[in-house]
Amino acid sequence: MTAGVRARKNRPMPTLRIALAQDNPVVGDLDHNADLIRRAATAATAAGAHLLATTEQSLTGYPVEDLALRHSFVEASRDRLVRLAAELAEDGNGALPVAVGYLDADGPITSRTGHGVRNALALIQDGKVLFRYYKHHFPNYGVFDEERYFVAGHELHLARIGGVDVAFTICEDVWGGVPFAVAAEAAAGLVVNINASPYEQGKHERRIALVKERAAEIGAPVVYLNSVGGQDELVFDGGTMIAGPDGTILASARRFGAELVVADLEVAAARDGDIANHSSSQMSTTLHVLSEEPAAVVTRIEPAHSPDLDRLEEIWEALRLGLGDYVRKNGFKSVIFGLSGGIDSALTAVLARDAIGAENVHVVSMPSQYSSSHSLDDAAELAQRCGLHYSVEAIQPIVDSYVAQIAISGLAVENLQARVRGNLLMALSNQHGHLVLAPGNKSEYAVGYSTIYGDAVGGFAPIKDVLKTLVYDLATWRNAKARSLGETEPIPENTILKPPSAELRPDQKDSDSLPDYEVLDGILTGYVDGDAGREDLVELGYPADVVDRVAGLVDRAEYKRRQSAPGTKITVKSFGRDRRLPITNRFRGKPS
Amino acid sequence: MTAGVRARKNRPMPTLRIALAQDNPVVGDLDHNADLIRRAATAATAAGAHLLATTEQSLTGYPVEDLALRHSFVEASRDRLVRLAAELAEDGNGALPVAVGYLDADGPITSRTGHGVRNALALIQDGKVLFRYYKHHFPNYGVFDEERYFVAGHELHLARIGGVDVAFTICEDVWGGVPFAVAAEAAAGLVVNINASPYEQGKHERRIALVKERAAEIGAPVVYLNSVGGQDELVFDGGTMIAGPDGTILASARRFGAELVVADLEVAAARDGDIANHSSSQMSTTLHVLSEEPAAVVTRIEPAHSPDLDRLEEIWEALRLGLGDYVRKNGFKSVIFGLSGGIDSALTAVLARDAIGAENVHVVSMPSQYSSSHSLDDAAELAQRCGLHYSVEAIQPIVDSYVAQIAISGLAVENLQARVRGNLLMALSNQHGHLVLAPGNKSEYAVGYSTIYGDAVGGFAPIKDVLKTLVYDLATWRNAKARSLGETEPIPENTILKPPSAELRPDQKDSDSLPDYEVLDGILTGYVDGDAGREDLVELGYPADVVDRVAGLVDRAEYKRRQSAPGTKITVKSFGRDRRLPITNRFRGKPS
Repeated sequence: MTAGVRARKNRPMPTLRIALAQDNPVVGDLDHNADLIRRAATAATAAGAHLLATTEQSLTGYPVEDLALRHSFVEASRDRLVRLAAELAEDGNGALPVAVGYLDADGPITSRTGHGVRNALALIQDGKVLFRYYKHHFPNYGVFDEERYFVAGHELHLARIGGVDVAFTICEDVWGGVPFAVAAEAAAGLVVNINASPYEQGKHERRIALVKERAAEIGAPVVYLNSVGGQDELVFDGGTMIAGPDGTILASARRFGAELVVADLEVAAARDGDIANHSSSQMSTTLHVLSEEPAAVVTRIEPAHSPDLDRLEEIWEALRLGLGDYVRKNGFKSVIFGLSGGIDSALTAVLARDAIGAENVHVVSMPSQYSSSHSLDDAAELAQRCGLHYSVEAIQPIVDSYVAQIAISGLAVENLQARVRGNLLMALSNQHGHLVLAPGNKSEYAVGYSTIYGDAVGGFAPIKDVLKTLVYDLATWRNAKARSLGETEPIPENTILKPPSAELRPDQKDSDSLPDYEVLDGILTGYVDGDAGREDLVELGYPADVVDRVAGLVDRAEYKRRQSAPGTKITVKSFGRDRRLPITNRFRGKPS
Repeated sequence: MTAGVRARKNRPMPTLRIALAQDNPVVGDLDHNADLIRRAATAATAAGAHLLATTEQSLTGYPVEDLALRHSFVEASRDRLVRLAAELAEDGNGALPVAVGYLDADGPITSRTGHGVRNALALIQDGKVLFRYYKHHFPNYGVFDEERYFVAGHELHLARIGGVDVAFTICEDVWGGVPFAVAAEAAAGLVVNINASPYEQGKHERRIALVKERAAEIGAPVVYLNSVGGQDELVFDGGTMIAGPDGTILASARRFGAELVVADLEVAAARDGDIANHSSSQMSTTLHVLSEEPAAVVTRIEPAHSPDLDRLEEIWEALRLGLGDYVRKNGFKSVIFGLSGGIDSALTAVLARDAIGAENVHVVSMPSQYSSSHSLDDAAELAQRCGLHYSVEAIQPIVDSYVAQIAISGLAVENLQARVRGNLLMALSNQHGHLVLAPGNKSEYAVGYSTIYGDAVGGFAPIKDVLKTLVYDLATWRNAKARSLGETEPIPENTILKPPSAELRPDQKDSDSLPDYEVLDGILTGYVDGDAGREDLVELGYPADVVDRVAGLVDRAEYKRRQSAPGTKITVKSFGRDRRLPITNRFRGKPS
């Protein structure tokens, strides 16, 4: 690898202008996604770029999950790629090399082995597909199941563009590293890594460190291109960047929004001849010569650096984009949910307003005999401050009609209240086409402190992965942000200050049934996010009886979570495809 | 491989008595599962067996899913194995070699890579663990995610027992085949393959063919030992068998029930010395000598052959065990659901009676103004014939109380009726502790012909993977079975003969909204189970417009299925972990 770098000493350094389309494709909407790529190509050509890269599976969206097992979908992807190549040429962008992420297959598809399905990148120029690269490393942990679908590629492709050998890789390849080592052996002047990498807290910092490290290792700049947008439980957070071989970040794009990054990179020229054609033990390399003439630019574009987001703003933007894209990409115009006066629905309301606009947010106050007057006031106050559609529907006559029919008491009646509210929201949804939101937080989902088919009703749960303590932090932060902008604080102070309560029986408080949220969330972070066992948590200082009780609640609530709505992942382990536990499970992890 | 077989010619053939514990462990209940193994060992010792094998992960249950990422669980499994070894000796079964399936780890557990976690088999004797074998091949398709958790083993262990070299393998190893080839190279006299292989239609026949083929390939008998029991969506169907090197089945156990198989096998004696210790390119082998003295038996036990089940009986038994074990293993005593007079709830009722007994089945007739009188009569008649707890709860006053509160009409009111019924069932469940069953069939779940939070309410959906046409076949079969036993037919003829209807509006019929079930189920079998595309289905003769409509319904119902209760898998692709499609998905598979 260092040999390659040394060999290039004293050669002229071409300046390559690269365009990176940090875009927001929609899973399955090949025409829409192709249009995004065409628009980016037109802008890149206008900007005088020598190369345009798009994100992982930019043509199909990501992740396509079991659509990868449907050959009609794989064929649609392959066909659409060929049409896109022709369209790019028709658009007058034929000269621009364009890297497109898509789904391919070069063998039979079977759900048993997945042989032949490829997570692929094609380089297009002059209406033709010049080569197809197949992803080498696969993520198969957390939310990822790529071993279920894809067969690994073992051929690295380099394109000589403007006298620079550019290697192309996909996502996990930068973590696994083999294609980067092979690119270095082949003396690549630049390695492009296209991603669809979903957000979780702290991940962007890990990416930055990794990309810097890879660039230093291979002695050449590394382009890390990421998509943006929500897709069911995932939010792709952008943050496209370019790292130089000295380990500095040369350019960085915004987070959570589309952007066409254009950057000029002074890059080592290719060595003479076709010496990049060789094979190592793990991957072979193939060189495609597009243009030998050293690339140059007339007026240098200064690289852009997007500002860092602070922790709470980053989370807020993730939640906002996750919710907004779920609504938009599924064809909804508006949302509806119950506004109780409590902190969870209050935060959900502000988030929904920020995501899709106040005019599309419908909130319903549904008091019962146990609802406190301050709750109703707080709900009305929030709706008024935020400009939401607000209505009040009494539930007591309906609850009474059930109780007149069947003999129930206690918990059955508590849950019934929540379920009547759920039915009212679903009826209004059926009548008016609103998407129902479930405003539960991660602490509630964890311990089952919610009513299935009641307050858990909804097509999407925007704060499902937000622990209760973080709900408070975000509420406080959002109010402070409003103050700093000279706006009214959206969330009434009383909603933040009062003790949390489900208000399903007289004088009920969350603290009657649960430990303090600081303690609960600490245990949950260990038990859920960290897969910690009982002894680990006791060692951290949590009382053994509290640990046992919380762990038992979490385990027993698995059946509820299995039927819960998807919600945006923001932690290392969200409830959903990220965490797969049996319902039938008698392990309690404590001494028997 | 043939060399090994030839080398054994003209040597005496020991007769090995093997015991195979086809048992029903519970995920996470290590003490219970250890007790099952101890009881099997005592019985095997009493029967004079030379070896006892138990099923894959017999100590932990299978599949443990993300419990494999919790080091406290892995340690509990390792510790319990050591205790089990001591207990077996204390029980007086120390001399018996016992193969136990369990979870192990020989490296750090991380959810990122899963390094170090092993799907393992330990051979225990005299209170000690003699060796630990790690599964070599992993299933990572359909319902299986083993690449997510486990690291492959590369060492095959052979135990010389009674002068016979016995090789041990786990589940997918028999499909992948490498350990069998290595066992043949090592001239194993017998290969034991322990399984936790879930049921689907036609799979047992594939297993039989495979096991015969492997035995013929390696020139030695192959033991295929499978577990039984329900675990969430899966049912393990037993059917333990032994195939001889001539490709015949020497013994076969019952399906869907526990059994200790004891069989005498005349097996080739081991070659002299430690020649099994060698390494091939893919796996090394290690020989453990337990006893050189050729095994013999005083009175030969004739191998048992269990009768084959016919297709519908096999499916019925799978559904019965799946439902019964979900109820029992989750600590429920009774179930409750709505009995409409229609075929789905009727079949569910008979199934529930067969699974847990009539005295534990509560059914509720919940008529609305659109319920036909024959429906009410049919429901009452079925409850009476089956001896179920039967009650009637009117829903109209409750529906009216909603309509008095909010202005809704049409579909919103139709769904409301179903949701009021769901609420009533949940209230009765909360009050009395019954598990609510959701009686929907696969055709309904496929096209979304059900009301979320309404008739889809329930903790378990027993016939979720049964297409409507199969529902009718099973109902007819179950009635015929009753007749053949001289019992009353459980399902009223009218329930089977009348046109299906949801009865949510006047004179509604399923055929108003859906194609004939023969056509619908044909398309669904292709589109869902077969991952077929539009063109494939049109080629099969289905009208293009019907295919497009059905496929569109299936795609749009994904959000409902995501929140649906688990149900027993009986087809090649059930809804659940078996089929993972995005909710947000604009691919429609037809020309745009």
